[in-house]
Amino acid sequence: MDNRPIGIFDSGIGGLTVFKEVLIELPNESIIYLGDTARVPYGTRSKDIIKKFALELVEFLIKKNVKCLVASCNTISSTCLEAIQKHSNIPILGVVDPAVKEAIRTSKNKRIGVIGTNATIESKIYEKKIKKIDPKSQVFTGSGSLFVPLIEEGLSNHSSTKKIAEDYLSRFDKTEIDTLILACTHFPLMTEIIQEIMGKKVKLVDSAKPTARQLKEILKAKKMVRGESKKPEYEIFVTDAPDRVYKVAQRFFGNKLPVKPKKVTF
Amino acid sequence: MDNRPIGIFDSGIGGLTVFKEVLIELPNESIIYLGDTARVPYGTRSKDIIKKFALELVEFLIKKNVKCLVASCNTISSTCLEAIQKHSNIPILGVVDPAVKEAIRTSKNKRIGVIGTNATIESKIYEKKIKKIDPKSQVFTGSGSLFVPLIEEGLSNHSSTKKIAEDYLSRFDKTEIDTLILACTHFPLMTEIIQEIMGKKVKLVDSAKPTARQLKEILKAKKMVRGESKKPEYEIFVTDAPDRVYKVAQRFFGNKLPVKPKKVTF
Repeated sequence: MDNRPIGIFDSGIGGLTVFKEVLIELPNESIIYLGDTARVPYGTRSKDIIKKFALELVEFLIKKNVKCLVASCNTISSTCLEAIQKHSNIPILGVVDPAVKEAIRTSKNKRIGVIGTNATIESKIYEKKIKKIDPKSQVFTGSGSLFVPLIEEGLSNHSSTKKIAEDYLSRFDKTEIDTLILACTHFPLMTEIIQEIMGKKVKLVDSAKPTARQLKEILKAKKMVRGESKKPEYEIFVTDAPDRVYKVAQRFFGNKLPVKPKKVTF
Repeated sequence: MDNRPIGIFDSGIGGLTVFKEVLIELPNESIIYLGDTARVPYGTRSKDIIKKFALELVEFLIKKNVKCLVASCNTISSTCLEAIQKHSNIPILGVVDPAVKEAIRTSKNKRIGVIGTNATIESKIYEKKIKKIDPKSQVFTGSGSLFVPLIEEGLSNHSSTKKIAEDYLSRFDKTEIDTLILACTHFPLMTEIIQEIMGKKVKLVDSAKPTARQLKEILKAKKMVRGESKKPEYEIFVTDAPDRVYKVAQRFFGNKLPVKPKKVTF
């Protein structure tokens, strides 16, 4: 048993989609969420700078005495998870492995599409991980970086967003994929548009639920679940604009946040 | 006479539009450009964090022994120029004053529109400055934050961009403005689309040329022009992805950069 909190860190507030699923899957766990809203987005930056920023986030949460870490950001999980894992000796889970497993479980024809930020797609991590588990599978990838600011500006249902999505998704035409991984925590907010463009035969897989489930398995296997019966505690930290985060978080969290975000400076 | 370089700093590479005009206006001056590509964009962040980041950029350039500073970013110029000016005793020029003067010179009916990032528009600095010079003028403002990532993704001529621009610019319908300030160094890259939507009767004003001209006047008035006859020197620093900056800079600079950008870490 381990009563310390779980740490979830993200380039911004997209990871609140993961936070929400962890709350559902592990309702007795205390959680500290940290979003780097002062430097979001990460997905268009270089690997070096993403690693530098991510290690600063990890450092902060380790000082808060978390028992494990979830990199809820696909960009971080794709580009520097190993470096982060080397940096500390608590379990660290990214969102790529859970999404990969879910996609392989979901796909029947083993033709899988992946849409993510530039950094995630350039890392080629999804191809590598999928092919490692199933070498016969075929993986088709495409960048959808612009979805992030479109969603953050509240334009996910704008007619222009649909046009841009059609362009981005057209690279999957003729690939006959039956499964599409939404490899960015923002993209589930565009599920409706993406599903409409891809058609009903293509199943969409996002990492939030599979990550929460895998985290639960890890905590059980390592006997690290929280044993206390008193209510779990939540803390949310952001590096900029806590009030605005509180206002707009509902879109990602699906509900009012359990606590008001606090500002932290590095 | 002062042979030290001019320092130009920006949230990213949009300020290269200003760098270019300074090169044309002051061809004998050495220049150091610094773009914070690791933390761009600034326009959606809070005033506090913009000020913190901007002061770090200023600190770096002051250590490089520049004789004056140009904040080529509208967001910085709008939100924290005074704080920066207090921080040092060399002349510091923003892009707002030059654009305001140019707009007042250009407008006949004194109905002026301003389109910029969220932070620039929320600062209300354009209204204040225009009305201070001409209290009878009327100022209409609107945010166009999404133009920045659209331009950075190379989608400035995409049909969706036009649709989004139509939405953003529709707030100027019925205002009868005859002049529109492009209050973000990225926006000149969308001049064509914006001009098409606004119609030929509306004059577009951007800050690059007026800022370069005002800088020239300041250096002359303060007897700070460079007196050396040997070739001026240029340095470009960015906080992330110098190679990518070198590749994409042409869109902003209109030409190949005079030197390769170097990476700097804070």
